[in-house]
Amino acid sequence: MSTIDTPADPAPDATGPAFELPAELAIETGVARRLIVDFIRAQLRQAGFERLVLGLSGGIDSALVAYLAAEAIGPEQLLCILMPYRTSSRDSVTDAETVVADLGCPSELVDISPMVDAWFEQPANQDASALRRGNLMARTRMMVLYDRSVTWRGLVIGTGNKTETLIGYTTIFGDSACALAPIADLYKTQVRQLSLAVGVPETIVRKAPSADLWPGQTDESEVGFSYALIDRILFRLIDRRRTIDEVVAEGFERAMVERVDRMVAGAEFKRQMPPIAKVGPRTAGVDYLYPRRRPRASAS
Amino acid sequence: MSTIDTPADPAPDATGPAFELPAELAIETGVARRLIVDFIRAQLRQAGFERLVLGLSGGIDSALVAYLAAEAIGPEQLLCILMPYRTSSRDSVTDAETVVADLGCPSELVDISPMVDAWFEQPANQDASALRRGNLMARTRMMVLYDRSVTWRGLVIGTGNKTETLIGYTTIFGDSACALAPIADLYKTQVRQLSLAVGVPETIVRKAPSADLWPGQTDESEVGFSYALIDRILFRLIDRRRTIDEVVAEGFERAMVERVDRMVAGAEFKRQMPPIAKVGPRTAGVDYLYPRRRPRASAS
Repeated sequence: MSTIDTPADPAPDATGPAFELPAELAIETGVARRLIVDFIRAQLRQAGFERLVLGLSGGIDSALVAYLAAEAIGPEQLLCILMPYRTSSRDSVTDAETVVADLGCPSELVDISPMVDAWFEQPANQDASALRRGNLMARTRMMVLYDRSVTWRGLVIGTGNKTETLIGYTTIFGDSACALAPIADLYKTQVRQLSLAVGVPETIVRKAPSADLWPGQTDESEVGFSYALIDRILFRLIDRRRTIDEVVAEGFERAMVERVDRMVAGAEFKRQMPPIAKVGPRTAGVDYLYPRRRPRASAS
Repeated sequence: MSTIDTPADPAPDATGPAFELPAELAIETGVARRLIVDFIRAQLRQAGFERLVLGLSGGIDSALVAYLAAEAIGPEQLLCILMPYRTSSRDSVTDAETVVADLGCPSELVDISPMVDAWFEQPANQDASALRRGNLMARTRMMVLYDRSVTWRGLVIGTGNKTETLIGYTTIFGDSACALAPIADLYKTQVRQLSLAVGVPETIVRKAPSADLWPGQTDESEVGFSYALIDRILFRLIDRRRTIDEVVAEGFERAMVERVDRMVAGAEFKRQMPPIAKVGPRTAGVDYLYPRRRPRASAS
């Protein structure tokens, strides 16, 4: 039981206040960095592009992607777009600007409020929930990124991590929409570890993760438990292929393990292409499947 | 060579002016109808939903889906949303209204102009191309459908056909975004055949297909050749697994066959989930793949 109650060692390269990096989740940051940088270059080459466009929120995920992308292709080829809504935290913009200044990449500030408000100011939508507002904001940002990808002639690089991809803490066709997903196989705790290793500013690494949809929102208060705990459970269920009973036998609380498992199953639709009714001999996504063949003609 | 120059028989159930249905593409409409209706029901059951929301454009694809969806779940469970932009053809709205009246399903009219214009009225975007405008309109419609899916508590049903899916005549994260794709394995010519069989109004079946992004636009003038010809080439390349040389040997023009093949390859990224850089033991979409397991918690 002590494996759960005793915080694991802090990240070996952490210098500020420790955050929890469970020992079994620690990665070789040098290897991960090289793999991801190579992946970014290979994806661009395959698609016939040389540039990237990135939505920079001020949070750790997009900051890490910015550093890795700048390393892969050079900062001048990376367009960072800051897309606050009028209720977004001013600190988020400041943190994003710090990244832009540190990397020296081109950037744009786009206030998405007019587009978002054009929908929610309509009488039928004025009482929309925070969920609906957050999803529409995420999708509006996707629209802006894809529109700018045409003029910038770059691919949209995604910022989703493995934790949120698995539990479905994403907006389908919103923040999960991209041409390549460089950190979607890194758990949130691993994102922190790699971020420190590649030089993401400590203030960004150490602040509480937040979707920044309303003031004071944090991911961990919304989901109800810490990333370190979710990541440890996910790592066992997914990477180690443990059953729920086996994870519980290690000392994790059953209700929590079952809840994480349910979240993973419930989000499966966000990780797959929409199912197609098979009528003909060969059906896209069913039995017509093959590797991408050659440079594509356009970004969108 | 005569197989190309001689139009094939018109659809057997056609009563108005003939449209070209190449003989090899003819389907058993009764079988296709049953397969698709069953598919819609099964997808809803699997996801734990009872309702659908559909973007009804006035064109044949969404009209056919409306008829099949109403047959599957009853018209009162199908919410049709008409989403014209201010330059959309008035005839499109009229045709969509005909479908709604014929089926007796609930409907809403949403003018997407305020959201779209909020972006393109900005000084930097005023000279945006028709491509950029069309893509943003398609994505705005996706946003509206997904937002209404929450309040309607229904899945977003897609309207893409096999021809446009294969050649990439779609907007990624726009009109191709959906929870289920009931007619994505029907070529455009087969969509026409099935539409007549299920009672889609003839005016809709027989008008020239158009994305309706600007007045007078038609798909066939934009792509440069007829759906009947594209479908015949695609059917050979994809369903019959013929090589380019084999299709040319049947009498099709080489430049055209090669162009269609290039379009299919160039659109591969629209038919796959974004690639993920593999770092950990098991990676979503790479080696962490399994069927959807149980009813999901929410529509978005």
